[in-house]
Amino acid sequence: MRILGIDPGSRATGYGVVDAHGGRLAFVGCGVIRPPARAPLPDRLLVIHDGVVEVLAEYAPDAAAVEDLFVAANPRAALVLGHARGAAVLALAGRQVPVAEYTPRMVKQAVVGHGQAVKAQVQGMVRVLLGLASMPSSDAADALAVAICHANHQSAGLGVPGAGPADPAATVRR
Amino acid sequence: MRILGIDPGSRATGYGVVDAHGGRLAFVGCGVIRPPARAPLPDRLLVIHDGVVEVLAEYAPDAAAVEDLFVAANPRAALVLGHARGAAVLALAGRQVPVAEYTPRMVKQAVVGHGQAVKAQVQGMVRVLLGLASMPSSDAADALAVAICHANHQSAGLGVPGAGPADPAATVRR
Repeated sequence: MRILGIDPGSRATGYGVVDAHGGRLAFVGCGVIRPPARAPLPDRLLVIHDGVVEVLAEYAPDAAAVEDLFVAANPRAALVLGHARGAAVLALAGRQVPVAEYTPRMVKQAVVGHGQAVKAQVQGMVRVLLGLASMPSSDAADALAVAICHANHQSAGLGVPGAGPADPAATVRR
Repeated sequence: MRILGIDPGSRATGYGVVDAHGGRLAFVGCGVIRPPARAPLPDRLLVIHDGVVEVLAEYAPDAAAVEDLFVAANPRAALVLGHARGAAVLALAGRQVPVAEYTPRMVKQAVVGHGQAVKAQVQGMVRVLLGLASMPSSDAADALAVAICHANHQSAGLGVPGAGPADPAATVRR
């Protein structure tokens, strides 16, 4: 099963692709979609959307996982982030790729083993778990972490959070 | 000049179309895009996006205007609203329709004459300004109000707020 993880952001949207066979994980690819920083928001959303569509065409994942970002500094930041996340999710929905959502805590739990891990620990474990020779960029590592989290939930038969009521407000938190 | 106004929301996205000739306004059409309330968010975003695409195909507007909603109850609500707004803006950007943004205060100022007007006043004035026989639904009226605001700014030569740096955070407020 091929899984695409996405770490959405209006400035940088990371993506990471892993193959999961039973409990084993294999790195396939990763990268960052960076809309021109000074472009108007509509144009940046289009770059994010079309970038995700290109990633789907290149890697043909069976499923996608996106971090459910409910911790935003303020309503304004959350609104802008929602635009970017919406553009990515829309690209997935338009190609009938099922979208699972995981809270940051669930991603840390899956990758490091506890939900209070710091960012650097997550990135280090992503590198170890996938046997990468070098450290991927921060955004790409976060995307790979979400993909790994989904792979673990799949192989553990824990189901797909968010696949039912994927409204962030309705997502199950553990 | 034909203008499409949009009032985005994850439950209901209103749209309204007006023709502006000099200082004169003519009602063209309006409606509400309602994704199935219990559908997952990705599916609802797709309904909003595809609904706006259909509206563009039906009315072929020259420009679009969207309310810049920076007043959200909380970061969570703002995040969900951002998704919906992003889906609508993305549909416009994908069809090369220029998108202007106006704050709620600017819309009230344009339609009622002062920025502290209540919702019912805005709706009543939309009906009067466009000579409508009956009151449009609340979401459609709000969308028509944004379109009227854009028409006024165009005819007054005030330029297009948000047409440059359309990032909500960068939008000029007056």
